[in-house]
Amino acid sequence: MSSYREAGVDIDAGEALVQRIKPWCAETRTEGVLGGIGLFGGFFRASFPELQDPVLVSSVDGVGTKLRVAREAGIHHTVGQDLVNHCVDDILACGARPLFFLDYFATGRLEVDVAAEVIRGFTIACRENGCALLGGETAEMPGFYAPGDYDMSGTIVGVVDRTRMVDGTHIQPGDALLALPSSGLHTNGYSLARRALFDMAGLDLDHRLDEGRRLGDALLAVHRSYLHPVQALLAEVEVRGISHITGGGILGNTRRILPAGTTLALDRQAWAWPEIFHLIQRCGQVPDPEMDRAFNLGIGLVLVLDPQDVDRAEALLRARGESPLRIGQVVKA
Amino acid sequence: MSSYREAGVDIDAGEALVQRIKPWCAETRTEGVLGGIGLFGGFFRASFPELQDPVLVSSVDGVGTKLRVAREAGIHHTVGQDLVNHCVDDILACGARPLFFLDYFATGRLEVDVAAEVIRGFTIACRENGCALLGGETAEMPGFYAPGDYDMSGTIVGVVDRTRMVDGTHIQPGDALLALPSSGLHTNGYSLARRALFDMAGLDLDHRLDEGRRLGDALLAVHRSYLHPVQALLAEVEVRGISHITGGGILGNTRRILPAGTTLALDRQAWAWPEIFHLIQRCGQVPDPEMDRAFNLGIGLVLVLDPQDVDRAEALLRARGESPLRIGQVVKA
Repeated sequence: MSSYREAGVDIDAGEALVQRIKPWCAETRTEGVLGGIGLFGGFFRASFPELQDPVLVSSVDGVGTKLRVAREAGIHHTVGQDLVNHCVDDILACGARPLFFLDYFATGRLEVDVAAEVIRGFTIACRENGCALLGGETAEMPGFYAPGDYDMSGTIVGVVDRTRMVDGTHIQPGDALLALPSSGLHTNGYSLARRALFDMAGLDLDHRLDEGRRLGDALLAVHRSYLHPVQALLAEVEVRGISHITGGGILGNTRRILPAGTTLALDRQAWAWPEIFHLIQRCGQVPDPEMDRAFNLGIGLVLVLDPQDVDRAEALLRARGESPLRIGQVVKA
Repeated sequence: MSSYREAGVDIDAGEALVQRIKPWCAETRTEGVLGGIGLFGGFFRASFPELQDPVLVSSVDGVGTKLRVAREAGIHHTVGQDLVNHCVDDILACGARPLFFLDYFATGRLEVDVAAEVIRGFTIACRENGCALLGGETAEMPGFYAPGDYDMSGTIVGVVDRTRMVDGTHIQPGDALLALPSSGLHTNGYSLARRALFDMAGLDLDHRLDEGRRLGDALLAVHRSYLHPVQALLAEVEVRGISHITGGGILGNTRRILPAGTTLALDRQAWAWPEIFHLIQRCGQVPDPEMDRAFNLGIGLVLVLDPQDVDRAEALLRARGESPLRIGQVVKA
């Protein structure tokens, strides 16, 4: 006799997980959410009376092989936060605020404790960003993932008034680049980082950085959400473009929003790479152009501003505890 | 010297994929879509003048280990269609029509041809369902997936008028269950099916079913979208509940929408299992309760109706080429 459980799928474990996470998910509930948990879809009221012409903005992402570091460290809630914050920053780059988030969690054999920690991370970050966790799927796929491995993706839906959409179309030569620091690698470049640090240099997660932190802690630092400072800025200053620095690096991502005929002049003296990036470069003998393409190098978000607005924007961000950096300008291509 | 490519991440392959799929994605564009491809988020106009109180309905899903069958058969567009149709049916079960879909595709080493076929499948099904492919993420995660393996998830957002939401709250004892046939396993039970058919019985994809089809074709039959017939029905008849038969089976899924104090009386003589389910049961010696829980057994969607409306609903569905089945009723628990 054969059963689903013998075939590697444990419906009871899935049910135990649902019961464990239910109260956390309920805590992410916002006023837009309608109905309960457990229906075939999540309901969110599409009424935005404060907006003239509401536009939904949506994005999907994963956290890549940072998951392997989480597994090795046995710490699973931070990658959950990473995923939500990554998604929040993606739609923030369009000027949008988050409404709701849905997750997909897939593993070979469902370990309820691990999955619950990941999902607890989703709910922590959802609460911080005022975003409802509206739905999720947990997939147990025997043979698809190595023991202890899992993958996940997240999808976010937010909203912005059409007149306040940020899409780079008004960027012009002379515009200033004001950057907000990252907290570390965020969610990009981990395959290269792991190869350099672990495979090539033989370091381990307990290796102490000069700055004092353990390497494992530096690598698992949570991807920052820039929602609150940038929303405050958007309310006061015209922001012509926002670039979320993910795979492709500062140049690759910021070029995505530039109008034809323009390019970037980065002032590379304007900031120092955090130690972790120097360590990766040294351990892996990674050439500069490759570092540029794979990593954020300490810059998490780039704001493109009319040069006349930079002082005010900088003051506003400093007042919120941020440390903005003037890292260059837009120039004619 | 180390590079991202040596670490197993090929940004150029990712770029080649984007170029390949761009025209297909553009063909899914609907009038709600604003802006172009390549920004940090996809834009969709949240204005629904035909609705009094619009509610967004969202769901996320995967296709499970059906992916392994796709890999073994070397056919990759059908699982793409499966994923979209699965998501469409999930929100249809809430009464919603689809607006947009976003995909996540993850693999160990990006094979552009395979990924492009999967995504072509997304676009085929998106077009069929009037749903825009608004965004996607392709993740290359060295070491996470066996060579040739990939995983994927999809998230859909749809809309329904609040007064037309289908959530089962008005279901009462005596209501009739009208079912629409599935096209096969849809996207559930593949781990058990593969264990029974391949590991235990030693069959292969070329095995001929009595009905004439190859086993591989039967297993890869595309998950049906019930959007068009059911939307037509919703316009004419009060539908009190809709259950999309996925993991958990007919009972497990339909119970999700029942009010407290009610349960189901299934008439198991009302339909015959398609051959594939008998074959799985025989090969795996799978007990009936396990078949019930893992498979749809030929039923893809269950509509809960006032008994007075059943004749009209059945006629309406037949007029659209469907073969509805009366499979039982709601009773007091």
